[in-house]
Formats: sequence, C-alpha cells, structure tokens
Amino acid sequence: MAGPSFPRLLLLFSGLLFLFTTYSSIYGPWSLSGSKTRFDYSSEKPHHPLDPLTAPEIERVQAILSGHDSAFGSGSAMIHSMALDEPNKQRVVQWKKGDRIPPRKAEVLAMSNGESRVLTVDLNSGRVVSDLTSPTSGYPMLTMDDTIAVSQVPFKSVEFNRSIEARGIPFSSLVCLTPFAGWFGPDEEGRRVIKIQCYSKQDTVNIYMRPIEGLYLTVDMDKLEIIKIIDKGPVPVPSSIGTEYRYGFLDKPVHMDRVNPMSMEQPDGVSFRVEDGYSVEWANWVFHIKPDLRAGMIISQATVRDSETGEARSVMYKGFASELYVPYMDPEEGWYSRAYMDAGEFGLGPSSMPLVPLNDCPRNAYYIDGLFVSPQGNPVLQPKMICLFERYAGEISWRHSEILLPGVDIRESRPKVTLVARMASSVGNYDYIFDWEFQMDGLIRVTVAASGMLMVKGTAYENVHDLGEKEDDSGPLISENTIGVVHDHFISFHLDMDIDGSENNSFVKVHLEKQRLPPGKSRRKSYLKVKKYVAKTEKDAQIKLSMYDPYEFHLVNTNRQSRLGNPPGYKLVPGGNAASLLDHDDPPQIRGAFTNNQIWVTRYNRSEQWAGGLLMYQSRGEDTLQVWSDRDRSIENKDIVMWYTLGFHHVPCQEDFPVMPTISASFELKPVNFFESNPVLGIAPYFEKDLPVC
Amino acid sequence: MAGPSFPRLLLLFSGLLFLFTTYSSIYGPWSLSGSKTRFDYSSEKPHHPLDPLTAPEIERVQAILSGHDSAFGSGSAMIHSMALDEPNKQRVVQWKKGDRIPPRKAEVLAMSNGESRVLTVDLNSGRVVSDLTSPTSGYPMLTMDDTIAVSQVPFKSVEFNRSIEARGIPFSSLVCLTPFAGWFGPDEEGRRVIKIQCYSKQDTVNIYMRPIEGLYLTVDMDKLEIIKIIDKGPVPVPSSIGTEYRYGFLDKPVHMDRVNPMSMEQPDGVSFRVEDGYSVEWANWVFHIKPDLRAGMIISQATVRDSETGEARSVMYKGFASELYVPYMDPEEGWYSRAYMDAGEFGLGPSSMPLVPLNDCPRNAYYIDGLFVSPQGNPVLQPKMICLFERYAGEISWRHSEILLPGVDIRESRPKVTLVARMASSVGNYDYIFDWEFQMDGLIRVTVAASGMLMVKGTAYENVHDLGEKEDDSGPLISENTIGVVHDHFISFHLDMDIDGSENNSFVKVHLEKQRLPPGKSRRKSYLKVKKYVAKTEKDAQIKLSMYDPYEFHLVNTNRQSRLGNPPGYKLVPGGNAASLLDHDDPPQIRGAFTNNQIWVTRYNRSEQWAGGLLMYQSRGEDTLQVWSDRDRSIENKDIVMWYTLGFHHVPCQEDFPVMPTISASFELKPVNFFESNPVLGIAPYFEKDLPVC
Repeated sequence: MAGPSFPRLLLLFSGLLFLFTTYSSIYGPWSLSGSKTRFDYSSEKPHHPLDPLTAPEIERVQAILSGHDSAFGSGSAMIHSMALDEPNKQRVVQWKKGDRIPPRKAEVLAMSNGESRVLTVDLNSGRVVSDLTSPTSGYPMLTMDDTIAVSQVPFKSVEFNRSIEARGIPFSSLVCLTPFAGWFGPDEEGRRVIKIQCYSKQDTVNIYMRPIEGLYLTVDMDKLEIIKIIDKGPVPVPSSIGTEYRYGFLDKPVHMDRVNPMSMEQPDGVSFRVEDGYSVEWANWVFHIKPDLRAGMIISQATVRDSETGEARSVMYKGFASELYVPYMDPEEGWYSRAYMDAGEFGLGPSSMPLVPLNDCPRNAYYIDGLFVSPQGNPVLQPKMICLFERYAGEISWRHSEILLPGVDIRESRPKVTLVARMASSVGNYDYIFDWEFQMDGLIRVTVAASGMLMVKGTAYENVHDLGEKEDDSGPLISENTIGVVHDHFISFHLDMDIDGSENNSFVKVHLEKQRLPPGKSRRKSYLKVKKYVAKTEKDAQIKLSMYDPYEFHLVNTNRQSRLGNPPGYKLVPGGNAASLLDHDDPPQIRGAFTNNQIWVTRYNRSEQWAGGLLMYQSRGEDTLQVWSDRDRSIENKDIVMWYTLGFHHVPCQEDFPVMPTISASFELKPVNFFESNPVLGIAPYFEKDLPVC
Repeated sequence: MAGPSFPRLLLLFSGLLFLFTTYSSIYGPWSLSGSKTRFDYSSEKPHHPLDPLTAPEIERVQAILSGHDSAFGSGSAMIHSMALDEPNKQRVVQWKKGDRIPPRKAEVLAMSNGESRVLTVDLNSGRVVSDLTSPTSGYPMLTMDDTIAVSQVPFKSVEFNRSIEARGIPFSSLVCLTPFAGWFGPDEEGRRVIKIQCYSKQDTVNIYMRPIEGLYLTVDMDKLEIIKIIDKGPVPVPSSIGTEYRYGFLDKPVHMDRVNPMSMEQPDGVSFRVEDGYSVEWANWVFHIKPDLRAGMIISQATVRDSETGEARSVMYKGFASELYVPYMDPEEGWYSRAYMDAGEFGLGPSSMPLVPLNDCPRNAYYIDGLFVSPQGNPVLQPKMICLFERYAGEISWRHSEILLPGVDIRESRPKVTLVARMASSVGNYDYIFDWEFQMDGLIRVTVAASGMLMVKGTAYENVHDLGEKEDDSGPLISENTIGVVHDHFISFHLDMDIDGSENNSFVKVHLEKQRLPPGKSRRKSYLKVKKYVAKTEKDAQIKLSMYDPYEFHLVNTNRQSRLGNPPGYKLVPGGNAASLLDHDDPPQIRGAFTNNQIWVTRYNRSEQWAGGLLMYQSRGEDTLQVWSDRDRSIENKDIVMWYTLGFHHVPCQEDFPVMPTISASFELKPVNFFESNPVLGIAPYFEKDLPVC
C-alpha cells in the first residue's frame, strides 16, 4: 500500500536520460541468463499441480498468445499478469507425488486497444480456450511499461514545466511517481486514468520525504494525454536534512550501548525440507508455497499430521493476502484519490525485492525465487523473494510447575520452535513483511508488519505552533514542512480452509452469551454461556467484531467427529483489528467493500480469489467480496472460504521519520477439537547437550 | 488464576502423613542456609531505594514486630505479606548511585484474632509507625500455614468421610485444594471463608484432571470449622488415562518429524548488565526490576536514552501486574464462587517456581531470585524466579528496499534484538508467563501467556451425544467425563507512566473522527480526522474500547515540546482485549470492578497500587480502582497512573487436555513524538563476520 511501488513508478528525469538504466536495473540483472540460483530456470518443469508457471511454460504461453492474436506478437497487446490457472481443487487434492501433472493452463490479464483482456491459455492443447474483453469494469495491474510510457506525458505540458521552474526546482532533481488510480466519477470511466506526484531527489535518496506539493497531474494512460493539471501554488519542499537512512551514510552518533549480535543456531542444521522448489515439509506440517505476482506468496494444501494416528489431515487448501487497501485521509485535490489497492493495482510480487540475508531473515534461511513475466511475455526472475526459516524466540510451547504432590517435583517446560515463511514487499514507500508461521501444535499465525517510508504531504508549517488554534486536517507534523497523512491499512486474507477435506465444512459462530440469574438460583447474578450458531448462508457470516458481544469463529467439518463427538475444526483468532469507517458509497470504499466486515465466509467458487475483484485497477466495485457474499449462497456443509481483514489505523508521529520502526499485527488459525488432545504433549525438552557449542 | 496454587493448597492425605514433607519441600530446601546462589543473602544490603527487603531486613522487621506486639513473637499473629514500603517518589527520583539509601520501611499485612492488620515498620527507628486493624473489609492473601491448618477440617466431618467412602475413593488418593475465596453474601462476612474441592491423585500426577465433583465444603479458616458441606451425590471421577504430561513418562509415539534444537547464540556474550542484583542496563534502557510477593515482578524507573542528545529520560516510574481476575462461568453450587483474584488472594510471587533453564528461558538467560517471608517472619528464598535475556526472533527493526533511483540500489534492513524480563507463575493449575520486553526503538511490550492445566468439572457424560439436544451450561467436553468450564482471564496492569518526569503529565484521547464531505467539496465522501481531547478528570479517562469508535491513547508531558512543538508521549497500544460482561453488582465483579473499563487513568496516589484493593481476599470491593476513579480527581497536568486490562475469554477444547498449549496476548507502550525522529535509524545491520561460528 501506501506509496508508489516499483511497478507503479514513473520516472521523469527531465527526459529519458536514465530511463534505460532504470529499466534494465529492473529487468536486466534479474533476467534468466544472469541468474545465479540453484535452479536452471530455463529448463525447469513443474513437479506439483500448483507449481507456478516455469520459464519454458511462460515462453510457450507467449507463443500461443501470439498465434492466437497477432497483437501479442506485435507488442500492441501487453501482458499485465500471467499466472498458473490452477486445476480444479478435486484434481489437485487427488494428485499424489509420482502422478502425472494435470493439464497446465495459464490465466493472462492483458490490455489491447484500451480494453482489458482476460485469457485462458491451455498449454497442453496449445490453444487459447477463453478470451474475454472487459468482462467487468476495471483494468489489470499496472506494468512497468505503463509507468515508463506515461512518464513522458507531463513534459508535454507547458504549464507543468513552468510551474516547476517557478518553484525553482531543478529538473534534474525531479522524480515523479504514478501511484494513484482513478475512478472518482464518470469523467474517470472508460479509460485508464493515473495521477502523478513529483518529489525532489536533491541531496537525498529518500525522495518520499521531499514531496513537491500542490502540483498534481491526471493522465490518460493509454492516450498518453494530460487530462488535468492542478497547480495550487508552491508549497515549501521539505529539506533533505535528516532524511538519510543508509548504513554508512549516517553521521549522527547512536546514543546506545552496543548490543552484541545474536543468531539462531542449529548445530544439526535446519529441520525442514523443500522438495522440487515449492513443497515444504517440517515437523508435522506439509504445504506448498509459491511466489505470486499479485498475492506475493500463496500457501496451498497445508496439511498437518494427526497427533494420535499420524494421518495427514487437510487444514487449508489455499491462503494468501488477497488485497491490501490503504485509504489516505485527506479529501483535498491531489490527495483524495490516494486509496491504494496494492495487490490488484501493483502486485505484491513485483515489489518484493530480494530479502537481505542475516537482516531480513536469519542466517539459516532458505530462499525461494519468484518467476514472473514482462509485458512482452518473457520470464523475469525475482530472486530471493521468499525465505523459510525455523524460529526459536525463547517462547514456551507449554509448561507446568507442580509442587503440590509430596515426593514429586514437576518442572515441565517445552521450547517453542516454529517455521516461518516470509516475504517483504516494498510497495513504493511502504514495506510490508508477511509471515506465515506454522506451529507444531497445529496453529498457523499470519503476521503483517509494516516499515519503510510514510507518504507525507508538504506544508508551509514548520512547527505545530504555526497552526495556532487550527488543527491540520490531514495529520500530524512529523518533520519541518512535513505532514504524516493519517491513513488506514487493511489486509484481506483469502483463507480457503478445508478441514479434513473440502466438503462438509461449516462456519460456527460460538457466542458467549450473558445469562442473568434470578435471585435465589445462585449466589452469582450472571455468567457467560456458550451457544453455537451454524451460519446457514453467506449473510449469516458477515461479521463485524464487537468486544461487548464476543464470539469465537469456528470452521468445522460436520461430517467427522472426535472420539468425544466434537466436530474437528479450526478457529480464527482475530488480532490487530480496525474497521473501515468510510461511507459505503465513497468511491474507494465501494472497491474496498471487503472491509465492510472483518470476517466473511463464502461458498467456494474458484473464480472468487481477489476480494476487490479480478480487474481491480479503477474498477467500480461490481466484482468484490461484498457482491459475492450478498448473493447469500448456502454455506452449511459445503466447501467454504473464510476471509479475514487485518487492519491498522495509522496516525503518524515523529518516530516514523525518516523511516518507520516496524509495527505489526497478527491473526491465528488455531485447532479446536481438531486433535484428540494436546498435540505437542510428547515433544522433548531441550538439554544442554542438544545445543550448539559456539 | 484458575486453579489452586501452591500457597492455596490444602493437602488432605487422610491425615497429616505427608504434611511435613510437603511443608519442607516448600520452605525447606529453599531456606537461606541451603541456598546456592550468587548472593550471600544473609548479609545482603540494599543498594537502591527500591531494592526489595533483604534477609537481614526481614529478620529485623520480625524483631520489631515482636517488640511491638507479643502476638508476633508467640505465633498468634501471622505475617501474610511483607514488602518494602517504597519511599516517596520524589525521594527515589532524586536519588543517585552513591547517595545514601533513603530510610527503609516495610509494609506488613498480618492476621491476628481473626482481624486484618496493616502495619508499617520503620527499620531505621526500629518502630512500628502505623498499625491499622481491618481498615477495610477483606483479608490479606493466604499463607501456606492457612491452607495447612484448614486441611484438617474436612475430616472432622462424618458426612465428608462417609461421602468419600460411598464414592469408593481411597482416602490415600485424596488431594484437596482450597482455591475459592468467599464473600457471596452476609453469611460470608466477618470471617475468613474458604471453599474446598478434592481431587484424586490415583495413577496420575495431574490431579486437576481428576476432580471429585459434587462434594463441596465451606470452612471458616480461623475457627477451623466446617460451615457447610454440600453433597450432590457421586459424579464419575474422570479416568487417569491420558493425563500424564511428564517427559519420560509418556508412552505414545510422537507423530512428528524431529526438529533440530535451536539456540539464540551470542559469540560476544550478553549485552545487558545487572548491577547490585536489581538494576538493569541494556542498549538505551535502564530500569530496576524486583521480585514481588504479590505482583510477581515489578519494573521501576524505566528510563530510555534520548536518541538525539543521549539524555536519560523517564518513561515509566512503575509497572506491574496489579491483579489477575479469573471468573468461571458456572453458577452451580461448588462453582459459583470460582472467581479468582490470583495476585491479591494468593500472590504471583510464591507461585513463581524456579524457571527451567533452556526451556523456560534461553541458554544465555540471567536469573534473579525472590526473597519473601514465612508466616513466622523468616526470610524464604524463591530461586530463579525471574529471568532476563536478549531475544533475536528473526524480526526486523526497520527496512526499506528502494529500486527507484538510477545507480542506487538500496536494501536496508535491521535485525530486531530486544531484552525480555520473564516470570512464570504456576498459580495452582494455571501457569502464567509474564514478559516485559524492551525494544531499542523505545517500545515496551508486555505479554501474558497462559499454559498449565484447565480447571475442569466432572460430569456423567462421556460423549457430547450423551447430552442429546441439551447443551451443557458450563462448557465443552474436553475429555471423557471432563468439562472444560468456560472462564475469563483479566490481567490488570498498573502503569505509572512518568513521561519526562512525574508532573505535567496528561492523558490525551486521540480520536479518529469520521468526517462526511458535502457534495462538490471533494470527490471523496468521507475521511477520518484526528481530534485530540485532553482528559480533565478521572471519569474522562474511563475507557471502553470500541473498534467502530477508534482512539489512540497518549500519555504526554505537556510541559515539554519536541523541536516541532509536539508534546513528548507514549501511547498505549491495546491488544488481546476482552470485556468483562458480568453484571456490575455480581459479587465477583464488585471486587473485579477494575475490569468495567479496559483503560483508566487515575491521579497518582501511592496507596493506590492494587486494582482490587489492598485487602483483596473476600473483600466487598470498597477499595478498588473503580472507587478511586469515581472520585473523579483532576488528572490534567498531573502525576498520573494508567491502568490497562488485558483479557481473554477461554472456551476450552480438546487440545487443552491434559496440559494447554500456550496462548498469549500483548499490549505495547510506544513512543509517540517522544523522540525527534526514528531512534533506531543508526543501528547497524548484521554482517556474517558478527555472527557465531558454531
């Protein structure tokens, strides 16, 4: 969310002086030929039905597309995304290692002649089996080509050039970004609209802290024409002082005692295995993990071993960040449109830069590369995009001390070791760190952490006292001439839970209901009683959380029973909640309607993956989770999907300048009567002899 | 909370066969003479005004008390708690290392002649300077002597013995506990009432899973008389099968791949220092930590170094768990009274058993002992009660990847290392792990994790189908004949924040207010605007959290300004919230009225430390946070105290049997405009050469 991202970057350096440098820094060194990874991507084959498209497959898709429509060969049709069109769930579930891989298909989102195209390409038959033009409003995510092409446009404007000159800003210091999608009314329909904000890179690499405020452009991305320039007059550009953040370039002393480096060490090596690139096994877990252009990282077929029988039991068919919605809270011209949909507009994959070993991930981490596609249909490598590591954080899996029983001195405690899959997406200014963490007790914890740079607004004020009694509408002053604009972050997760299989799943609202007791019945006057309500339809499962009306949310298999007769399930344990308070008919909220509830449960439908719609960019919101759920399909004893939105309100403060200390929030998927008893009862404690000698 | 605790344990072994064994296992091996710790406790002196009472001081208090009132010498007055009566805040704040220690006083809570006594003993003058008898309702926390004395009482009852015989329960297997305080009406006033539940230890060390249900005793603890026996007839005692949890005694295979041990290693050793037993320095933090009989662990004078100037700046004068309230949700006879106040009724200190090295705390942990007092006034050592360790959990302090600027390839990321102070209190069945975690960015995170055993209720049912259409009122079936009774956990923290000093602190409610925009004003229809409200009085600061009416909660120093004119502050970031839904006039809730709001801010008053009252046991709730706050004192520009309650609703499940996987919740105290900018900007990344060679 938040700021401009790599794919949405529009580079205006008073021309195209550095354009090819920039372009090649993105596609160049990471091309397949230059790759130094453990895979030979050029001849890689899929090993699992859900494996991402391989480089040869990507090339074949491009060839098929060119045969299907010459626009793809000539470059007049551009590929905005290409990903595996996953086989039907039944097919995938039935597949076993050694079986033939089911037929491979690709889903391609493209633009040609100003229209969206949604194509399905069958790699086995070599045919395009579906080719839809503008099936809904909205467009595919931006490409780098889009942003580079549009970068020329502002300079066509005499007004723009004059305004920059009048502000005394050297053209050589200009960096302009294209982070803001359109659709705020009929004049922004039927064409791809983008809005532009410029920054100064003079004396800083932290351009985000030096906005050139008051000058805003709206551009037609396909016609490469300026639709509107707004020049509200010069606003002081915040100084570069204090904006540096790179190690080795800071000259201020650190007022802190040195803290000795630490490392999580495993003398016997890591305990997880990654087979065929994407299939992970660890402790009692097996799952498939893959980089994804849009979601960044997808966990599939998470299966846990039963603690009693050893049976491999399905927990989750598919889990991923479906959308990342960041509305800013400033209604002024140039700002009202800043309400990002980072997954659908820019993609979390392309902005996931290589993780920094030892710092982003611990020393023993294992890295997985992403393989995406250029607008021309060529494979592009995204190295070290995901890391996997075991974590020991000094936490306790379970414990009990007992001193009650004579002659028995019990001090039982077990260390907690988990497996983490991590990705960090630098969507322009903001950096989002996504962790999927697997515990031996069956719990899955999903954490979203945010760091990087704020999106700030230039202002004439240098001190809050300059404001007098007035309060600034947009947010707090976080540095001289710099307002940290208030905003929200909402991350909506698609959680296709398949508890012991896809079918016969139900969503149970476990209500803690207050009971009042009549006088004389008990010496207590009140207590809470648990009552269970099975959601019959999707509308029964549109959940707004309320602390004073508490529920647990269970997803259970009603066709199976524990030895005590309880249906096995997982519960969603919400955390880090914030509600979107925007009006439901506010344009960003129409597209972000998936935040109208914190939890939803829908009937499984393979086409319903993206909470804001398949063609999110500039859409009018007719293909969102809200729309699907309002169909009110039956969800009892069915294959169902849970959706959960994690949220933060962010009121910036001085500590967020010039780069933000990480904040984070988590939710959990926790077994509830899934196991017959505590599944980690039998794990061993640590003994001194087990630990490393360093 | 939860179950019976070591100090509340009543051991009935058809006599006193094992009584001395048990007694000596508590006081015996941990007595001073047998201590093998780094301190010579017998001659220790205080080094800091807040250091806990030393062994010689404890002995001197006992001598002064005996001189003051011969009841203390003769054993007819019993000491229930003894702790440092801390000097006035001003005195402590002004004190510098090398200064003389301010005069030492002890606060003693005692019982004599069935009355509560609150005494203040001046160690310098050798006099009792205050001696109050029953200043409020309620009694001091239980002692081991109480529980042992009361253990005789049930056997006086022919009815009890006959009932046990009729149930066919061997007397040798009986273990009875005294976990339930009284006060549920006038007949439970004016005397110390305790209620008793018995368990079977046949074939198990996990007595909590084998309750002898339906037989409940109420005893007058001072007269040692039975007040009431209720025998509702036999209920099957749950089997011992599956209740074992000790390593080496389990015979089931673990269906899990082996996970290699991990350790957090620091080749250059730990980076924190503990001076004079209780004064901690690490990175940019200095604080005092001490074991406490009631709170378990108290953090005092937490001071962080300013990132710009190096100035040591006050953040928190005192922080601790003030009360731990656990109401069970079963109104039946024998269960309605189970609403624990673990700190005030039993003390979190005495139940903090020695931490298990490598498992409760990582290898490089440093341990701190507790020093408490026996009912007779002798020092008692509680070894390894607190651990301190640095944590590296693979987390990221801040990061940013930048690929925008030509020729500049930025991948900045910093590992997060924190300092954790931990205590684990086994309050009978439940184990609570308390972490105070300090981050270099100024953040303090407080985590409460719960493990140990559920408090279960015996039932005739073996399978949920036996219940037919009926739902059990108390909670889910978690094993055969075993109901996990639904309950809440509320942990109320006393957070005496002193931001840049004690005075001039204010509590600011930072409201995110929805603004609707008139048509034509903007293309947006709504946004959130931040408005600040300074709480004038205590009632302004009685906060019920609501997701749909969001606030930030800042505690600021209004007499100081950042360079931008912002008042420096810390915000409370709530987490793991649950509201108490019990009626306000329900007896447990009258005493637990501090849970009527999640946040409170009170005027500083040194006597207001314990959210449920100084004499909590069986009190009628006239000395609670609710009562203090309702005085509605001015809190603007004052020395003020914030109170925050972390909460869990707990609906048990089969995974909680026979010992619960840890669950946890956290809240944070986070700097907000306290630092001029990101205080961890300058910390160094990790390089391979820094890390250990193992």
